[in-house]
Amino acid sequence: MPATIESVKLTEENTLVILDQTLLPNELVYRTLRTKEDVWQAIVALQVRGAPAIGIAAAYGAYVELARYSYDSISDFRQTFATIKDYLASSRPTAVNLAWALERLEKVVSQPWNGAEAALQAVRGEAEAIRTEDACVCEAIGRHALTLLNNQAGILTHCNAGGIATAKYGTALAPLFLGKEQGYDFHVYADETRPLLQGARLTAWELQQAQIDVTLICDNMASIVMQQGKVDAVIVGCDRVAANGDTANKIGTSGLAILANYYGIPFYVCAPTSTIDVTCQTGADIEIEERAGSEITEAWYEKPMAPAGVKTYNPAFDVTDHTLISAIITEHGIIRPAYKEAIAAHVHVG
Amino acid sequence: MPATIESVKLTEENTLVILDQTLLPNELVYRTLRTKEDVWQAIVALQVRGAPAIGIAAAYGAYVELARYSYDSISDFRQTFATIKDYLASSRPTAVNLAWALERLEKVVSQPWNGAEAALQAVRGEAEAIRTEDACVCEAIGRHALTLLNNQAGILTHCNAGGIATAKYGTALAPLFLGKEQGYDFHVYADETRPLLQGARLTAWELQQAQIDVTLICDNMASIVMQQGKVDAVIVGCDRVAANGDTANKIGTSGLAILANYYGIPFYVCAPTSTIDVTCQTGADIEIEERAGSEITEAWYEKPMAPAGVKTYNPAFDVTDHTLISAIITEHGIIRPAYKEAIAAHVHVG
Repeated sequence: MPATIESVKLTEENTLVILDQTLLPNELVYRTLRTKEDVWQAIVALQVRGAPAIGIAAAYGAYVELARYSYDSISDFRQTFATIKDYLASSRPTAVNLAWALERLEKVVSQPWNGAEAALQAVRGEAEAIRTEDACVCEAIGRHALTLLNNQAGILTHCNAGGIATAKYGTALAPLFLGKEQGYDFHVYADETRPLLQGARLTAWELQQAQIDVTLICDNMASIVMQQGKVDAVIVGCDRVAANGDTANKIGTSGLAILANYYGIPFYVCAPTSTIDVTCQTGADIEIEERAGSEITEAWYEKPMAPAGVKTYNPAFDVTDHTLISAIITEHGIIRPAYKEAIAAHVHVG
Repeated sequence: MPATIESVKLTEENTLVILDQTLLPNELVYRTLRTKEDVWQAIVALQVRGAPAIGIAAAYGAYVELARYSYDSISDFRQTFATIKDYLASSRPTAVNLAWALERLEKVVSQPWNGAEAALQAVRGEAEAIRTEDACVCEAIGRHALTLLNNQAGILTHCNAGGIATAKYGTALAPLFLGKEQGYDFHVYADETRPLLQGARLTAWELQQAQIDVTLICDNMASIVMQQGKVDAVIVGCDRVAANGDTANKIGTSGLAILANYYGIPFYVCAPTSTIDVTCQTGADIEIEERAGSEITEAWYEKPMAPAGVKTYNPAFDVTDHTLISAIITEHGIIRPAYKEAIAAHVHVG
């Protein structure tokens, strides 16, 4: 089942192998990354994508780059790590897991090591731990989220928060995969998610592979399927959660939350605690990545489907106001409003 | 300026020439239609599209087909017309202008004529009148709608209710073209409008040609541009208005209205009175055309961007609840709630 497809894997030769998500569903291509530049480029080009998978790739990527050199001293090693960390962190600004994974490595690097080789192995161990923990986190999120969904429910999701976006199972799709294993029969509507069509290419594909009933719609059809009573819950992943519960996720998520609110449908956000950033007071503090307009006017098309030279605006994320979110599901359980207090308590428990 | 591009034109040889809107903006191709089958196919394939333009094409198309034959009697002529009317009416169920234009011809045909040739010329005259009136209607809608928009306003529109969708000027775009002529400086956001990208291909192109500032966005970016305060008004066309003000328009319109309502932004619908159908009590009575899933999974793409065999749902329209509409603008003026009473009075005036 596709939840077990490994989208990011470290090899014995200290290279990183990733599933190139830009080519799905037409081609299943794995790419080998050998340098920090390879990793940076793969993240920027969305060959590896999904907040948790980006964190895993960055951690492994830092190790792969570090393993290329020999070091005179531990301080030489630490200096090289600092350069790599800054460089990889610059690849995508919105996903907090990227910075979070690199911080974890930094903590390890800063400990007293008996030479660079020991530090290098510790970095490898920490990167492995990040991957393993993510698989457990996703399974736990799926278990908690499944308690919110009735059998035969109609479920709408956006973008791809599936197995390939994480170490395993995904976040928003985790309850669907786990539910399927337990005999639940969900009816899923997958938004295609323009401009890069992660819903059409990845979510529809993953669910189809898992034999879960999935219907592909365009983003602007979410309102009519809700109006027609086909949707009992909206469930999405997220890239960053602020201290007050405001949530950054794939562009279009905030609109879905407003629609769900209007139609009286619960709106659930699946968020590993690694995506909770209590240093962000509100969503207004979250930097929104803006991407090239050619993604709108050209990508995927045989010929441009917009007039030459047209101005575009292509934000990759938007912020959903916490007042529109029915619950945030983490690996520790279900957070309900009031979010500020609940998140503070939750993160402490974590 | 593109508002004067004629998208549907009758030739002296009794053929119909249409601008093939499916090829814009890459190619400017005109097609000659010689039979009712040609016209039916052009409407189904959206080569001619936009509620008013469809009405004009159907009226001209009926004439073109009628002119191909000679008739033994006026009743022979009337019988042929009845067949053509039913056939052309079946091409697209949601746009009321199609039926409305054909009803106008039927009234003419049913009058006492001195032979088939006189009836045929009367049909031609009526079709010409439908086109000319539409140009006047659009100009009047533009004039009224312009009073609702401030100079330098940010305006969001969906799909294409432009000049090529009508005889001239369009409906929702009419105030923008008229405003431009009068020195207004609007900042327009055009939703690309999946699956067929009428916003990207047609609206962005028409506005660009008219040197109106336009920014192309994906449908799911409407929420963020509203959130950022970039939108002072949403303005859309429509395909049918029910007696209570519920409005059918391009898929995604109802979602935009919900977003505009949430963000406190006025939501305007431009509707020639020909689109008002008082026999529809509410939007629930409006038939929603469902189109082929391949428009979502394949159209415009070099290779499929969804997994083979995936289930799709592709409604071409949705219904916006009247409670979400700030005003409906017709050629006679501006209709405000309570719509049921206002529309009844308005249609009587018309």
